[in-house]
Formats: sequence, C-alpha cells, structure tokens
Amino acid sequence: MIKTVGIVGLGLIGGSMAKSIKKCSDCRVYAFDIKESTMKQALESGAIDGRLEDLSTVDLLVVALFPQDTVNYVKEHAGQLHPGAIICDICGVKEKVIPEAAAACRASGVEFIGCHPMAGREKWGFENSDENLFSHASMIMTPEGADEQKVQELEDFWKKIGFGRTVRTTAENHDRMIGYTSQLAHVLSNAYIKNPLSMEFSGYTGGSFQDLTRVAKLNPVMWSELFFCNRENLLRDVSVLIDRLEEYRQALLNNDPEEMTRLLKEGSDKKEELLRKKEKEQ
Amino acid sequence: MIKTVGIVGLGLIGGSMAKSIKKCSDCRVYAFDIKESTMKQALESGAIDGRLEDLSTVDLLVVALFPQDTVNYVKEHAGQLHPGAIICDICGVKEKVIPEAAAACRASGVEFIGCHPMAGREKWGFENSDENLFSHASMIMTPEGADEQKVQELEDFWKKIGFGRTVRTTAENHDRMIGYTSQLAHVLSNAYIKNPLSMEFSGYTGGSFQDLTRVAKLNPVMWSELFFCNRENLLRDVSVLIDRLEEYRQALLNNDPEEMTRLLKEGSDKKEELLRKKEKEQ
Repeated sequence: MIKTVGIVGLGLIGGSMAKSIKKCSDCRVYAFDIKESTMKQALESGAIDGRLEDLSTVDLLVVALFPQDTVNYVKEHAGQLHPGAIICDICGVKEKVIPEAAAACRASGVEFIGCHPMAGREKWGFENSDENLFSHASMIMTPEGADEQKVQELEDFWKKIGFGRTVRTTAENHDRMIGYTSQLAHVLSNAYIKNPLSMEFSGYTGGSFQDLTRVAKLNPVMWSELFFCNRENLLRDVSVLIDRLEEYRQALLNNDPEEMTRLLKEGSDKKEELLRKKEKEQ
Repeated sequence: MIKTVGIVGLGLIGGSMAKSIKKCSDCRVYAFDIKESTMKQALESGAIDGRLEDLSTVDLLVVALFPQDTVNYVKEHAGQLHPGAIICDICGVKEKVIPEAAAACRASGVEFIGCHPMAGREKWGFENSDENLFSHASMIMTPEGADEQKVQELEDFWKKIGFGRTVRTTAENHDRMIGYTSQLAHVLSNAYIKNPLSMEFSGYTGGSFQDLTRVAKLNPVMWSELFFCNRENLLRDVSVLIDRLEEYRQALLNNDPEEMTRLLKEGSDKKEELLRKKEKEQ
C-alpha cells in the first residue's frame, strides 16, 4: 500500500503531483526542491506535509526532474529506499532514462516504473502547479519487467489521484509515439508563430491560429534536452512533415488545384478515420 | 435600416446567418438554396421566413457561396436589387471577389461590402449550422469605397446578431493575413495528421495533438478554391514555414542542443510577446 510519498522536484509536474495526492488521498507527502523559496511556498500552502529527509520512509518516490538529472538522482539514491518501495520518473522520454534507472533500482530491491503524465501547461514552476492538472488525463507507464503487483498498485494510485486512464507500453514505443504526438507538435507550433505576420493576428482568426500556436511557449532548455533524448524519432517525424508540406507547396507552384484537392482530401479522410476510431473507443 | 434580408446559399455559414438573424433581430429572412431538401429543412425549422423570390424587396443580400460562384451570382443579380440596398459576400478570400462584384453593384446603385466571418467548423452544410456560430467572433469587413453610412449600418447589424467585433481592412491586407492565420493553419493541420503514427495516438496526447489536428478535416474542394484565390500569399507562407522547420531539423542533424534551445527560445519569446499584446488589447 502506498501511504507515504516522496517527491523530488516541485516544478509544474512535481507540484501538481503533491497537490493532487493531498486532494485525493490520505497519503503523507514529503518533498525536496533545490529552491528554498519553492520549499517554503509548498509547505505554507499545505501542498506537502514536510521536507523529504529520510528516503527509507517512503513507499513511492516520484522523481520529477529533467531526464539526465533523473538518472543521476536515481543512481545516487535508490539504495536509501526500503526494499519493495517504488520509484517512478515523470520524464517525457524513456529510452534514455529507464534502463539505467531501473538497473540501479533492481540492485537495491526497489521497483522502478517509468511514468509520463500526458498533461502540461504553457507555464511552468510550482507557482503554476494545479491539483486538477491530471484530471481525466492519460498516464503512460513503461514498467519493463517491474513486479506486476507493484505496477497494478501504482496504476490504482494514479487513478485515485485523478488520472482518467493508464496506458502501458515499452520505452521504445513510448518514445516513438511521443516524438510525433507531442514533440513534433511543439516544434511545429514554435515554428508556425515565427512568421513576420504573427503579431498582427488580432481579429484575423476564428480559433485555428490560437490552437496551432498554443504550445509555442515552452521551456526551451527542457524541450531541447527532451528532443535530443529522442533525436532519431523526432528527426524522422520533422522530415516526414516537411516532405508532406512540400507536396502542398508543389501543388501551388504547379498551379494544380486538382492535386491540392486530392492532398486535402487525403488529410481530411485520415482525420475522419481517426474521429471514428476515437468514437468507438469511448 | 435593414429589415428584410436575403440569403443565397444555406450552407454552414448561410444557414448560421439565417438562424442568428432570426434569433437576434426582427428581420424577415428569405433564402435560396440549390438543394430542395435544404430549402425544406430551413423552412420547416423556422430558420427562414420564406423563399427568396423577389430580390427588390431585400435591404441586405448575403451571398453565401464559394468565391467564383459569388462573383457570378452578384454580376447576374445586382441589377434586381433596389438602389441603396447592400450586398455582401462571406468569402475567405477578397482580392479575387471584391473588385468584380463591387463594380457590378456600383453600376446598379447597390452597395457591395466585402465580409468574412471568422468562424467555422469541421462539419459543413445546413445540418451543421448553428444560431451561435458567430457569438463573440470577429467579422472582417473590406468596404473599399462603399458608402460610410451603409458600412456602419452593416457593422451595427453584425454586432446585433452576435459578432463580438468587426475589423475593417483592405482586400489586399485581408488576403495577406488570412493566408497565414487561417489557410496555412489548415494546410499544416492537414499535413500533420498524415504521419503513419497518427492512428495510434490514443492515450499518447495531452491536448497538443488534438489542437494541431482539429482543422485537418475540411471541405477539400472549397479550400482548394480558396487557396488558389490566394496563391501567392499562401505559397510564401508555406515556404516560410518549411524554411523555419528546416532549421530545427538541421539542429537535430548537427547534434546541436544549444542551437535547438536558441530556436525554441525564439519561438517561445514571440508567443509571449503575442500573449502580452493580446492582454493589453482586452
């Protein structure tokens, strides 16, 4: 049973984790953040019960740091947890994190379970954390050989604190999918807004512009690290997108409305297929 | 005073116009659609008061057709309206529509005022029309030399039936802006969904994927016509986007996280500037 939770890193995700756990469960939450002002804020707001000092007291340790920091932290601290405890990360990439972190945990009889909450914001830091950030969101889990009972325990825990569903997959498939559904979306949004006309948009959009530029604001250092932890997948997806866009450009260049209609129909049909698939799932 | 409105074409926009006018004003609405089943539906639902038969009775004629059909219709029928009446279009492009349509109207003492409601949907046709489609939306107007009193009258009318604001500009600037804020967004969304991974998205997105693919479903024939009516602007914007995306691709290829961080920061800063600008306006 997960009764005591430790959280390392009280950024947007770690902070929202703490608040969701306090809101939805009776668990005790102890946390550590490198910024003393964040610790103070978290303590005063009641988001956490106290400082995380003794790792041997926690049943679940959520390491809510950037990818490389996560690996380093787990390698250094896994030995301090009691056997049978669970450690999870929250990283947006898995292949560069899971094998090293899991090996360090196994050596100490601790279970490592990769986790990636499908929720985010255009603002970050504890000050933007929210007890409802994970409401109805999907939590991707990459257990990769972790004890089944522990995986189920953690799955139940995520649902208890608000997640709408959990999805289990491999680190490899996680990175392949996330490169496309999330990382490429951020690249695209970030590139789209760079057109010199963007500052004049006011009054000239019915929603599509806002939708397409929503995630253009991001933490550049974090996303750059995430992108390079998933370089090959993202590189392939950016290339695919450029190739497809080039087709529309050629249709315009060649003055070929029929080819343009065909290209648009192809994309529109795909979206319709996807909507039907989604409906069936619900 | 606008008391009697004629609508030609009861698609998504024409149909929503009829319903908004009936909901928000005492105007009489007469309409014509080429499909008899649509006419029947519109009459039975009370969205219109009757068939549009005598154009000389209307104070405002809304031509809600595709661009070329709009020009043809206005040229053929402008002479049947009473002098002082207003004709407007609802087309997503203006330079290919306004001059010809306006000239035909001027010859009959009728005012032509270009209009483009910034509202749409991923579904079309009268069956998807909605009395609230224009709520709080922006209506772009390209009056280009029309009588100022008539322009104000029409502006007031749009606000009365639900639009949140009106923006006046030239046909040239309209097309320049719309190529970027709307047409490019549709190309991009339509291209983004073509990645072979798109069908597996379920569980792997927190919102950015949905946002980016929202407008992927569209009417291919209509959008192809709109794109070619604005070919040069759209061609330039697609090219700009491909060039910018190529920069991220190069940073990945060159294994250059610092350049990637710089590129991301550039886009993120631009989005922040835009958010600040928007806040100031509100």
